[in-house]
Amino acid sequence: MQFRDEIPTPALLLDLDAFESNITTMAAHLRARNKGFRPHGKTHKCPEVARALMRAGAVGICAARLSEAEVFADHGIGGLLVTTAVVGKNKIGRLVALASRAPDTMFCVDDERNVREINAAAAARQGGEPIRLAVDLYFGRTGVAPGSPALALVRLIDSLEHVTFAGLQSYDGEAAHTTPFDARGTRTRNSIARAIDTRRLIEQDGIACPMVTGGSTGTYRFDSEIDGMTELQPGSFVFMDLDYERIGGPAGPEYHDFKNALTVVTTVVSTPPGFAIVDGGYKAFSTDRPFTPRPIGLGAVTYGWAGDEHGRLSLEHSPRELKVGDRIEFIPPHCDPTVNLYDNIHALRGERVEAVWPIAARGKSQ
Amino acid sequence: MQFRDEIPTPALLLDLDAFESNITTMAAHLRARNKGFRPHGKTHKCPEVARALMRAGAVGICAARLSEAEVFADHGIGGLLVTTAVVGKNKIGRLVALASRAPDTMFCVDDERNVREINAAAAARQGGEPIRLAVDLYFGRTGVAPGSPALALVRLIDSLEHVTFAGLQSYDGEAAHTTPFDARGTRTRNSIARAIDTRRLIEQDGIACPMVTGGSTGTYRFDSEIDGMTELQPGSFVFMDLDYERIGGPAGPEYHDFKNALTVVTTVVSTPPGFAIVDGGYKAFSTDRPFTPRPIGLGAVTYGWAGDEHGRLSLEHSPRELKVGDRIEFIPPHCDPTVNLYDNIHALRGERVEAVWPIAARGKSQ
Repeated sequence: MQFRDEIPTPALLLDLDAFESNITTMAAHLRARNKGFRPHGKTHKCPEVARALMRAGAVGICAARLSEAEVFADHGIGGLLVTTAVVGKNKIGRLVALASRAPDTMFCVDDERNVREINAAAAARQGGEPIRLAVDLYFGRTGVAPGSPALALVRLIDSLEHVTFAGLQSYDGEAAHTTPFDARGTRTRNSIARAIDTRRLIEQDGIACPMVTGGSTGTYRFDSEIDGMTELQPGSFVFMDLDYERIGGPAGPEYHDFKNALTVVTTVVSTPPGFAIVDGGYKAFSTDRPFTPRPIGLGAVTYGWAGDEHGRLSLEHSPRELKVGDRIEFIPPHCDPTVNLYDNIHALRGERVEAVWPIAARGKSQ
Repeated sequence: MQFRDEIPTPALLLDLDAFESNITTMAAHLRARNKGFRPHGKTHKCPEVARALMRAGAVGICAARLSEAEVFADHGIGGLLVTTAVVGKNKIGRLVALASRAPDTMFCVDDERNVREINAAAAARQGGEPIRLAVDLYFGRTGVAPGSPALALVRLIDSLEHVTFAGLQSYDGEAAHTTPFDARGTRTRNSIARAIDTRRLIEQDGIACPMVTGGSTGTYRFDSEIDGMTELQPGSFVFMDLDYERIGGPAGPEYHDFKNALTVVTTVVSTPPGFAIVDGGYKAFSTDRPFTPRPIGLGAVTYGWAGDEHGRLSLEHSPRELKVGDRIEFIPPHCDPTVNLYDNIHALRGERVEAVWPIAARGKSQ
């Protein structure tokens, strides 16, 4: 399998030129503003992508889940931050094991009992550095409320022997897709201001707060201008998708900061009158957005879901005839859950398959 | 990991008692009506589930795709029927290889050029039986129109040396979820009548048509009563889901023929005021239906999507308090694409984990 047209469909393709350009753009932007770059690994779940980001100057990689972080650690990726709480006895045991072999790993917490359980599990081992806990702030999903509730949790961490306070996570998920651009700026600035106030409160209390981490592909332009924000954790910019394309940028309703590097290639498998049926359906694309995959090079042709295994292209406005065997590429609606359907990324330099990268943490949602 | 409560979340659980009851119900129904039972493997993609179906009398297993069939063949499952067209030179090469090692495998076709390509590829090998091709009939998605267009394709197959006509596939995807029950009966009977007419046309032409295969969990009661329908290929009945629960049965708006055997278990990871956040989102459940996962044992509590990794339970009507660490099980909206997110099925006998079954064909959509 040396060429694009030989890859069995449906498959995930990555345009390496666009991908590298996206990484360069984000890394240069953050470097120029003296912000740390800890991109989110939940987007790609792929050690080779993580390595490309580290080569571009990332200080580490975020992982959405413990099992995802374990895979990155297995592949030698350092500077891990697990951005969601690790809950329950068995998982906390694994957390301690991961912290023991990768002591710079940080884990997000938002619950007092959870913090005490992590401390107790860490106490039970022989030696080892205190485990680094970041306090996740609440902006509508998980987290503890900014201000005094967060301070109380930080004090608890600071008072315990086997854990240490690593900083704050300020991630407002809704901000990333707020439109238009100016409203997005207002929203993320307001959220992060609360995190910075909380940081001040903690430091006034005599506890160091070396990190405020957060931000997204949608908000990085704003977040990177904020004093006291120490690092950003965007994810989707490496690939992009239809969802991020729609959020608008400083110049209008489209968001042009990054290029669409990720596509799904399918094959036309049947041609009933007026339609072409392709071999990609619910198992080839994520379906969590209200819009469908966009075919490339077919003008106004639209894709309609046609079950688990198929999609239906309505050819009324097609610029050309489609026949069985034709290969059609699509920009996926939402990159993260689409990537999570595949075992490999086919990395292309033009028409040539330069590498096949295992999505080693695919399905690692535990 | 011996008990239900020790399984890291999110995870896929199977209640073995319900699963075995579902298989017994379907197998007995079809046996009593002298219909073949070739259940669809796209639902489970799991060799252990396929073996359980074969033990119950299945004549084989359907596979949605060539790569899925290859996995079943690797695990010794016979009587395979690939229910979608295998298109393109590389895949046709693999089709011939699969037919060579598993000569009873059947492959669906609906396109003349595709048939000629398969014949040519089969001709190029040394020896081997003719490859068994089933003609897929059109009911709105893939397939060739019933009647004379289908007959023309059957004649072509019959005229070629290295392929042989195995029968007709009559699968009307829309029929499976037509409501209410009576309308579903009318729809599936009308579709299958066209297949039976086509069968007659083929046999009048002097070509044997040993198989008419099709049907679904939604239509099996009707399909199994139709003369000339030789076998059924239902899939979802082994697990069930919210989607099939809503289609209605002979006794009213709920469909009680099969039990919900499949659940997704999650953990409460955060408890902001009024809500419980669980660790299952777009990567834990399929999102292709307009309704959300249903929590078990929580009365009127509803689940709302909260991103890739989380779901949000609104506790206004909760019968009990939920705290971090609590485990909540859900019935998934749609079983097939939910199963396709996981690497394993945890098979439970009561609270005990009796086995962990690899979903060996997960992601095998090629």
